[in-house]
Amino acid sequence: MRKRGNTGAKRPTLADVAALAGVSAITVSRALRDPQKVSPQLQEQIAHAVQKLGYAPDPAASALASGRSNTIGLVIPSLTNSVFSEVLRGVYDALEETAYSAQIGNFRYAPLGEEKLLLTFRSQRPAGLIVAGTDQTAGSRRLLEEMACPVVQIMDIDPDPIDMIVGFSHHDAGAAAARHLVEAGYRRIGLLAARMDPRTQKRAAGFRTAAGAATGPEREVMTPEASTTVLGGHMMAELLAKAPDTDAIFCINDDLAAGALFECQRRGIAVPERMGICGFNDLDIASAVNPPLTSVFTPRYEMGRRAVELLLARIGGAAEGPVVEDIGFQLRPRGSTATKG
Amino acid sequence: MRKRGNTGAKRPTLADVAALAGVSAITVSRALRDPQKVSPQLQEQIAHAVQKLGYAPDPAASALASGRSNTIGLVIPSLTNSVFSEVLRGVYDALEETAYSAQIGNFRYAPLGEEKLLLTFRSQRPAGLIVAGTDQTAGSRRLLEEMACPVVQIMDIDPDPIDMIVGFSHHDAGAAAARHLVEAGYRRIGLLAARMDPRTQKRAAGFRTAAGAATGPEREVMTPEASTTVLGGHMMAELLAKAPDTDAIFCINDDLAAGALFECQRRGIAVPERMGICGFNDLDIASAVNPPLTSVFTPRYEMGRRAVELLLARIGGAAEGPVVEDIGFQLRPRGSTATKG
Repeated sequence: MRKRGNTGAKRPTLADVAALAGVSAITVSRALRDPQKVSPQLQEQIAHAVQKLGYAPDPAASALASGRSNTIGLVIPSLTNSVFSEVLRGVYDALEETAYSAQIGNFRYAPLGEEKLLLTFRSQRPAGLIVAGTDQTAGSRRLLEEMACPVVQIMDIDPDPIDMIVGFSHHDAGAAAARHLVEAGYRRIGLLAARMDPRTQKRAAGFRTAAGAATGPEREVMTPEASTTVLGGHMMAELLAKAPDTDAIFCINDDLAAGALFECQRRGIAVPERMGICGFNDLDIASAVNPPLTSVFTPRYEMGRRAVELLLARIGGAAEGPVVEDIGFQLRPRGSTATKG
Repeated sequence: MRKRGNTGAKRPTLADVAALAGVSAITVSRALRDPQKVSPQLQEQIAHAVQKLGYAPDPAASALASGRSNTIGLVIPSLTNSVFSEVLRGVYDALEETAYSAQIGNFRYAPLGEEKLLLTFRSQRPAGLIVAGTDQTAGSRRLLEEMACPVVQIMDIDPDPIDMIVGFSHHDAGAAAARHLVEAGYRRIGLLAARMDPRTQKRAAGFRTAAGAATGPEREVMTPEASTTVLGGHMMAELLAKAPDTDAIFCINDDLAAGALFECQRRGIAVPERMGICGFNDLDIASAVNPPLTSVFTPRYEMGRRAVELLLARIGGAAEGPVVEDIGFQLRPRGSTATKG
């Protein structure tokens, strides 16, 4: 049961400590910041008052005074998407044993959501900020450019970052998937894509360019809905209805790919013989299913970890100036696209 | 490219506006808060100065002054777990179109991580806080009891909440799964459990109590690792090695259940005939696989939505005092536990 309601007992202030210790507030402040600056006797008087009142410095007030909190802010478009969970793991691992902690804002792909969150974060004076992608609105970009802390963009790559960027090319990754399917002998390749955020669209564009004549708009099923395994099954069914001779698919992520595989199982369509399937991200599920799914591994953990390292280096005094780190991706061929005879 | 480095241009203050407008800072403050309190001429003078300097009120300073920000804080133990993504969806949906925005702290089941996050949130003066479960440390509980904002616990239920609570009984939910498997005719029922957080342990305890002689320690495979589908496969293999006559399993969540199903597929073990499988949470994957998985649906979206509603009502002036809302769970039988003949 709650001991104090919303009105709450007033928390003791520095002035209360000073009054009880019989010294000035500035002396208390000095003693708390740097005990060696006051006499041992004063130290003891003040420590006694602090303990008696249960005084704790207000970190909000300290942040306002020092102009910086110990928070690393992450502003991302989704948390329902397993893709970001590995990024977060990297961020948290890198922050472990440091003085900093992470706080997350999720704007759910809302057009002005990122700006709103950046305003909130700005008011909290974070030590650093991590944002996703390169497609910020003009307003968000301006906020980030003027933010009084280092900023790292992740999940994508761009030669002209706001400040620092660590990621990979979604266009090239989509192209790699297409080339793999063509090299494996597939000739009528479909595309399943959901959400259609800017990075999804880059993967789709890279896929189309590299697949060339092996694909076409008649083999594409796309939706603005968020991807799920159930949705992957529905989309596979839709593709088979509109282009039944499709012999392989590139799925814009592994959730869709797993759902498409389950739909093939229900229809008795042999994977990889009659249908090749390539997913994206190499989520846990890709290697768990039967046959395991070929996928494009994306270095999500590494992006999170590296973003924090870059922030900490900059906070620690590393030179200003743009940083661009392309950490690539990796095609991982598995049973769902075994080479055809 | 970043326009301003970390040092940043100094942002204009209220005093700068006052100086330019030729009035006192208190007049500017009054004019911005309540324009009708100053003359139209002063209004115009001040508006002109605000525009010329690009002055924007500092929300951090306002929060410090008013004692409250417009942030709803969520403190949860995991984001890599799909369970929380639905909770978040409920939270965000309920906050849509309100003046409040959510900020998330993830302590990754670290023993003192919750306390650390609560200290950070306290410094930001949130309008309300949502925390997971009832197993806070003594330190966290004290922080929450003394927090100057309403608090809702979610994901579990307890007759003695810190402030308000909305959730369901994990013990009863585990018991419901056991009863379903026994009623379906299974007699040698195993348990696969990962992470072993307090809610997992409550489900396991409820399962054991209700399954009675149909289960036993020799049929349990448990690990402190985080659950994944791949792990579910490994755990199924381990269970079959130690208790090969097991005829059904209760998996503490659907990731494990899906992985166990895939492992059965690889071994040619017929589900549900030779092995019944019941998962937990009713994640998307449960209905996507073949056969679809029986699971215990948990109202995750609803808990998130309702928690925000309770906070907003309290912020809006609803009466103080404990609120306990048990919103239950629902067993959803599917193909993976079809009744035996």
